[in-house]
Amino acid sequence: MIKSLLLSAKRYAPEREIVCGNRRYDYRELNARIARLANVLTEAGIGAGDTVAVMDWDSHRYLEAYFAVPMIGAVLHHVNVRLSVDQIGYTMAHAEDRLVLVNDDFLPIVEELADRLPTVESYIQLSDAAEAANTSLKTLGEYEALLASTSTDYLFPDFDENSVATTFYTTGTTGNPKGVYFSHRQLVLHTLNMATTLAAYEGVSLLRSEDVYMPMTPMFHVHAWGVPYVATMLGVKQVYPGRYEPNRLVRLYRDEGVTFSHGVPTVLQMLLNCDEAKDTDLGRWKLLTGGAAPTEGLVRQMVERGIRFYTGYGMSETCPLLSLTHLTPEQAALPPAGQVALRMRTGVPISLVDLRVVDETGCEVPLDDSCVGEVQVRAPWLTQGYFREPEKGAELWQGGWLHTGDVASVDAHGVLQIRDRIKDVIKTGGEWISSLLLESLISRHPAVANVAVVGVPDPRWDERPLALVVPVEGQEIDSGTLKQHLMQYVDNGEINKWAIPQQIRIVDSIPVTSVGKVNKKQIREQLAAQG
Amino acid sequence: MIKSLLLSAKRYAPEREIVCGNRRYDYRELNARIARLANVLTEAGIGAGDTVAVMDWDSHRYLEAYFAVPMIGAVLHHVNVRLSVDQIGYTMAHAEDRLVLVNDDFLPIVEELADRLPTVESYIQLSDAAEAANTSLKTLGEYEALLASTSTDYLFPDFDENSVATTFYTTGTTGNPKGVYFSHRQLVLHTLNMATTLAAYEGVSLLRSEDVYMPMTPMFHVHAWGVPYVATMLGVKQVYPGRYEPNRLVRLYRDEGVTFSHGVPTVLQMLLNCDEAKDTDLGRWKLLTGGAAPTEGLVRQMVERGIRFYTGYGMSETCPLLSLTHLTPEQAALPPAGQVALRMRTGVPISLVDLRVVDETGCEVPLDDSCVGEVQVRAPWLTQGYFREPEKGAELWQGGWLHTGDVASVDAHGVLQIRDRIKDVIKTGGEWISSLLLESLISRHPAVANVAVVGVPDPRWDERPLALVVPVEGQEIDSGTLKQHLMQYVDNGEINKWAIPQQIRIVDSIPVTSVGKVNKKQIREQLAAQG
Repeated sequence: MIKSLLLSAKRYAPEREIVCGNRRYDYRELNARIARLANVLTEAGIGAGDTVAVMDWDSHRYLEAYFAVPMIGAVLHHVNVRLSVDQIGYTMAHAEDRLVLVNDDFLPIVEELADRLPTVESYIQLSDAAEAANTSLKTLGEYEALLASTSTDYLFPDFDENSVATTFYTTGTTGNPKGVYFSHRQLVLHTLNMATTLAAYEGVSLLRSEDVYMPMTPMFHVHAWGVPYVATMLGVKQVYPGRYEPNRLVRLYRDEGVTFSHGVPTVLQMLLNCDEAKDTDLGRWKLLTGGAAPTEGLVRQMVERGIRFYTGYGMSETCPLLSLTHLTPEQAALPPAGQVALRMRTGVPISLVDLRVVDETGCEVPLDDSCVGEVQVRAPWLTQGYFREPEKGAELWQGGWLHTGDVASVDAHGVLQIRDRIKDVIKTGGEWISSLLLESLISRHPAVANVAVVGVPDPRWDERPLALVVPVEGQEIDSGTLKQHLMQYVDNGEINKWAIPQQIRIVDSIPVTSVGKVNKKQIREQLAAQG
Repeated sequence: MIKSLLLSAKRYAPEREIVCGNRRYDYRELNARIARLANVLTEAGIGAGDTVAVMDWDSHRYLEAYFAVPMIGAVLHHVNVRLSVDQIGYTMAHAEDRLVLVNDDFLPIVEELADRLPTVESYIQLSDAAEAANTSLKTLGEYEALLASTSTDYLFPDFDENSVATTFYTTGTTGNPKGVYFSHRQLVLHTLNMATTLAAYEGVSLLRSEDVYMPMTPMFHVHAWGVPYVATMLGVKQVYPGRYEPNRLVRLYRDEGVTFSHGVPTVLQMLLNCDEAKDTDLGRWKLLTGGAAPTEGLVRQMVERGIRFYTGYGMSETCPLLSLTHLTPEQAALPPAGQVALRMRTGVPISLVDLRVVDETGCEVPLDDSCVGEVQVRAPWLTQGYFREPEKGAELWQGGWLHTGDVASVDAHGVLQIRDRIKDVIKTGGEWISSLLLESLISRHPAVANVAVVGVPDPRWDERPLALVVPVEGQEIDSGTLKQHLMQYVDNGEINKWAIPQQIRIVDSIPVTSVGKVNKKQIREQLAAQG
């Protein structure tokens, strides 16, 4: 039960603070506010099994909803406000949201969608300004006013720990977003295991009682990687930064004494480049990244600034944490620069995670960091399927293992390296070639502005790689030069000769998805249509 | 599932050691040996639901059984070898043990009992000597030989996480021992929560990856407080000391680099007093005590030797951990001597433990460290009842809370102090008086050798305290002098005047139980018989 995660902080650290904007209050008050929010929700007619959506920046309100909504037996829907308006509407209708907590900044989206959300009965406004914004929506009022109007007493019930606590949607390159969901039991287990993982290993020690936590992964993104639940259980000081603005994040780090944050590589890169970071000592910061592979340049920059840097791996379907940087004592004794390559890797599976990397025949790949296979996992906190799409859930869990769709290699220390998505890997002559690796090698040629590599059907080899290359403006390049360029990586052993694409096409542009990723499915379809 | 606790150590610390006697092996080998033991058990006909008993000192074998037995779906019965032979026989018959792993040292007990154990089909000998002892029992062979004869492959099945994993018996002053039992789910939750508790709080930090662990609470005693599971999950170096011998424990501490141990106060006192401890720097040792209240003298001695000392609370019924020393930052900044009184207290309830101290009317007592009530708890890892004694289980769980039978006060920081057993507390005029407190105050008189205080029925006050006092040999003492002696504690506010026993009887001896505790039940019965 999620409510049990609240028991310790008020005993261990009743005076420690939750900070958001000008608001700061302690753990006693957090407990009182969660009870108030539960009363507001109950008075709004929300009961067990109902879904409550939140559309907000990272805030104390979001943290309160992380607890109050599941604790009354309702389901918390973290709406991904970065999706297109249509996609947001799809997810809110599909999740059957009944009540929506919406930040003034997202009112225009909801006002546009309101007619298409038949299950939504009412709205609560979340305002960071002194005056709540005007809206045509039928709202119950502003969050703080509603909280103030109700009581701090709420008797949170006991119920089946397998009840769904949270849901959110994950987007692929095709089709509609799919809803994943997590039970009380799963979130408690994920929280306890993550607390151990972040605290018990001297080589990791990212989050202990005296740390100060500030998320930089949105709270609508896989429970902000699960850390708000951990931080609250441990009773650490927490800082919620609202909308991410690099200079403000650095100022909060400095002024609030932040020691631990997590974020995707692009956010971390923006941080390092912002004005405020130039003259700030970042050496106290422990940073965890994930969601995408950090570049070597980014990691090197962080290490030079004294930041203790870790890489984790997980996905929406996995709650999320599956693996985390873990150095052997010998590796940890290396000078910081010598740890860069190690800290960029995808990490070692954490406790309670059963993880295997298997090839097409179902055999585990050798630990040579070269052979690749699909990452498949079992752990107590993985989504049991996709909401109202049982056939997709069955596919996800084929053979009793969750298929991540990620392709990885494993080194002799058991450290993972994600290489590609399985849909994009090129299966040729019984071997798998990473499309991302080929793209990375081709892009090292100075005349290449952009590149995409896909597999195309081949009668003899099953598939063969094909590259689309956009030249740097004003420069010329041809297929022969690029093949020559790739030969150096054959010579130094990075790839085999048969990995060199037979076809390299020079093009003007490469199709991307709505969220800006290379749309390899579309490329493959276009190539197929061309014959 | 307990098997999931084994996943991380072989990845994080494959080379770290398990040490027992002359045997030392790493986590890879631990995994292999657990598979071998599973094969031995399976070949012996043990299957899901069968009970396997272990009678051993603290050893690597016991650790292997902690995993292998539940991982094949069987139930591990930790036999309390300190009980009387009859009680041991009762517990083994009641638990329906099918196979018994028995150390040569306990063969005489089992040989005597064998005819009274109809469910036991076979025995496995555990020998620390080069040659296994001779026995009349039908044994399958010696443990190491059996392990060596089988394979390191075993496919541990998945099954219902609510399956019983372990059982053991708890003794009261009356009646037969009662069997408590814990499921895979409960042990995993207890392990994860304890790992967090021992690692994530800077003020505690008893067990982290680089620590070296040696138990000094027997492994048949409430899972050695659950620590072997935690240590194994974290992959720390573990030292199993066999039979406890103070000088050898101190040598192991010194030679193996031990940093964390736990034990009851009497074991810790023996350690400090032994020869080997005299010239050994004990300053690296972190010690956790529990099971009984440590005396101030013991704690002061430990603090003077530089030992970091903690007190925990739990019982057989609670897996066990419920509360642990937790100092506020201000308290932690006090000089060591100033922390003695704080570290002797029973501690703060740990995360996920819902704990209340309630008086006879069911109201929580004020946080004044003076009012007392019964400690009642809820947590995911408490025994669901007593094996084959449903009515006693129902009594334990009256009203949905586990009744510990312990009486405590709580101070303003939420720190517990156990004061008495509820059966022994004296209920007088609507107030509860701790019999232990009165005994402690009376025993401060130099002429008192031994004392027991019980409640006797009183028509007006419900109960009144009555003291039995044994004088120091060769000295005389009378009731009036002792009442006078107690008045000083009334004057300084430690007790109220009505707490002074009206009747103080000078006696030759005080009845004790088979395990040497004062037998208050017998005292009350004798007093009642006398009228």
